[in-house]
Amino acid sequence: MKQKTFVLAPDSFKESMTAKEVCKAMESGLKKVYPDANFIHVPMADGGEGTTQSLVDATNGTLYSCQVTGPLGDKVTAHYGILGDKTTAVIEMASASGIQLISKEKRNPLITTTYGTGELILACLKHDVKKIILGIGGSATNDGGAGMAQALGVKFYDKDHKILSKGGGALAELVKIDVTDINPALNTVQFIVASDVTNPLCGEKGASNVFGPQKGATPEMVKQLDNNLKHYASIIQSQLGKNVATIPGAGAAGGLGAGLMAFTNSKMERGIDIVIQYSDLKNKLKGADFCFTGEGGIDFQTKFGKTPYGVAQVAKNLSIPVIALAGTVGKNINELYPEGIDAIFGIIPCAANIEDLLDSGFCNVERTSENIARLINIAQLKNKI
Amino acid sequence: MKQKTFVLAPDSFKESMTAKEVCKAMESGLKKVYPDANFIHVPMADGGEGTTQSLVDATNGTLYSCQVTGPLGDKVTAHYGILGDKTTAVIEMASASGIQLISKEKRNPLITTTYGTGELILACLKHDVKKIILGIGGSATNDGGAGMAQALGVKFYDKDHKILSKGGGALAELVKIDVTDINPALNTVQFIVASDVTNPLCGEKGASNVFGPQKGATPEMVKQLDNNLKHYASIIQSQLGKNVATIPGAGAAGGLGAGLMAFTNSKMERGIDIVIQYSDLKNKLKGADFCFTGEGGIDFQTKFGKTPYGVAQVAKNLSIPVIALAGTVGKNINELYPEGIDAIFGIIPCAANIEDLLDSGFCNVERTSENIARLINIAQLKNKI
Repeated sequence: MKQKTFVLAPDSFKESMTAKEVCKAMESGLKKVYPDANFIHVPMADGGEGTTQSLVDATNGTLYSCQVTGPLGDKVTAHYGILGDKTTAVIEMASASGIQLISKEKRNPLITTTYGTGELILACLKHDVKKIILGIGGSATNDGGAGMAQALGVKFYDKDHKILSKGGGALAELVKIDVTDINPALNTVQFIVASDVTNPLCGEKGASNVFGPQKGATPEMVKQLDNNLKHYASIIQSQLGKNVATIPGAGAAGGLGAGLMAFTNSKMERGIDIVIQYSDLKNKLKGADFCFTGEGGIDFQTKFGKTPYGVAQVAKNLSIPVIALAGTVGKNINELYPEGIDAIFGIIPCAANIEDLLDSGFCNVERTSENIARLINIAQLKNKI
Repeated sequence: MKQKTFVLAPDSFKESMTAKEVCKAMESGLKKVYPDANFIHVPMADGGEGTTQSLVDATNGTLYSCQVTGPLGDKVTAHYGILGDKTTAVIEMASASGIQLISKEKRNPLITTTYGTGELILACLKHDVKKIILGIGGSATNDGGAGMAQALGVKFYDKDHKILSKGGGALAELVKIDVTDINPALNTVQFIVASDVTNPLCGEKGASNVFGPQKGATPEMVKQLDNNLKHYASIIQSQLGKNVATIPGAGAAGGLGAGLMAFTNSKMERGIDIVIQYSDLKNKLKGADFCFTGEGGIDFQTKFGKTPYGVAQVAKNLSIPVIALAGTVGKNINELYPEGIDAIFGIIPCAANIEDLLDSGFCNVERTSENIARLINIAQLKNKI
């Protein structure tokens, strides 16, 4: 029998395992049936949580941590990755400015800032990178990326030529933007922004109206924040000559999308497409017999750009069967079959509370993978008789 | 592609689905991938709960219900089956005399009786059967089968020639057994007793000591019951010339094993072996491509005579791959692989409470079966490339 090649390209199982750990669990299970097979680990992500870790793991890069300013001004430990190519950095803005860093009662997008995200970018720039992949989901902020810009050397003044304080509330006072001292490295660095959000900066579908409430904004605050972002966009337009108000995606991450458009050389892409590219998934898949993927939860919404879908799209083009594992198998998974996910298996062994299931993720992926391998084996043996 | 044949031979999923329903769920899932396949349903059981239903379903027999005397003397509705051959009946003693019929605080093996089991046998005899398959697990009784014998026409007298009252406590008074009026059909009927229990009637490993406590016996009652069964055995020995005290299995079901040995023409077999024989599993498996089995719970103990193990033993001999589904996948299932269970899959889609999972058994078996079929299909297609 020809040696089999398995490409293992799962997302992380949130709160249970990193994507790399899922790869290891899959290999451990499959190896019991195919001890001589090739196992190619491609830890994946879709631009959301775990993207830094997975791209670092997929490219044999390095994960760094540093102290930055949290969304409320206190110091937090954030992470960034330098990929194996040593010229590409990867950041999740949520690591510095994420909603998960603030308890519910302290959430207030009038004062939360993306300053820490700017500091995280500065940390990357010190590595002389040419590209920065930036995942921008899960923000606690609504400051139009002004905080990030401040950290990068942009100055925001009020009418008394005083430096603006941080947060989306202070943008009402903005009179002048001075980009003279912006970090010069930004001239040569390309930002690749992972975002599936197409909302504009302002208005009914804008950042404040759509995402403000989940960040703690009251209806009054939403109005104020929306007006402030309009004002911010008009100053950017008049002083920098850039229209960010209506561009799709400018409203992502509390307007961080607009800030990136205004102050950096950036383009937005779907998170999963970025990870597919930088993990080199397509090349790693070539010649594989089976591709395994998975995620903590899989349902029909997986087809809207989640990792198993993205992996399946690539594998399908190469006619490689895709098998997905999930902690939670949700509704209407039959909608995923035509998308190239050939079979989907849950890993839960028994009725149990969620904490125990999160703790036992590794052995559940391992056992399920082993039994999938056993089934592949008997099906193929049967076929030869 | 040659039309595939799937033999579906699961046990019931306790408190969720009968074995027949599991068969239907499996077919429904498999059919989505193999619409033209042959599906042979062989609802299985292992001699325990569900054996009557499964053997009736497997043989196109008929299920009957009748009123009998419950373990505490009140009327209960019990069931028996007449198999498709019309000459074999099947009973579960628990249906008439089971522990599940009595609330915990009312359990008292001094007074519980197997009388209803005898009545259930009488009901079968009216169908002119030649064989009665009798599952004897889950009894509430410790009466040595004396109640059953009374129902069949045997008379038990005390020293004053008064009819003994029912229950294991009254056996202390037994002085004379009169079998004159025993139902004459018993001369020609063969009892096939499904039991994995090898305990003797009396002593340390006897019915009272080992099983008495779980039927509500206090330590004092256990002693009393054990002495009574010894006395009962000695009367049987002296008046009927049958030694039942030390025969393995005589202690099954509170000594019902001994009663069957004393008053009927009976042999004990392993439950799963009986069901395999009467469901004609071996013949139905011949020529099948895959055998599906399953049970509510599967773990290493499955190899001690549970349905998936028994099914696998038969299929293994015919070189047919066996795939098992389970609600709960327990410990050390790797011990089942060498026994012929080739792959085992859990059906639980997500963390949920047990009631919801029991309610959603059908669609979970269906979805898992579909994905197993999808995997078989891609594995075999891959193999041909």
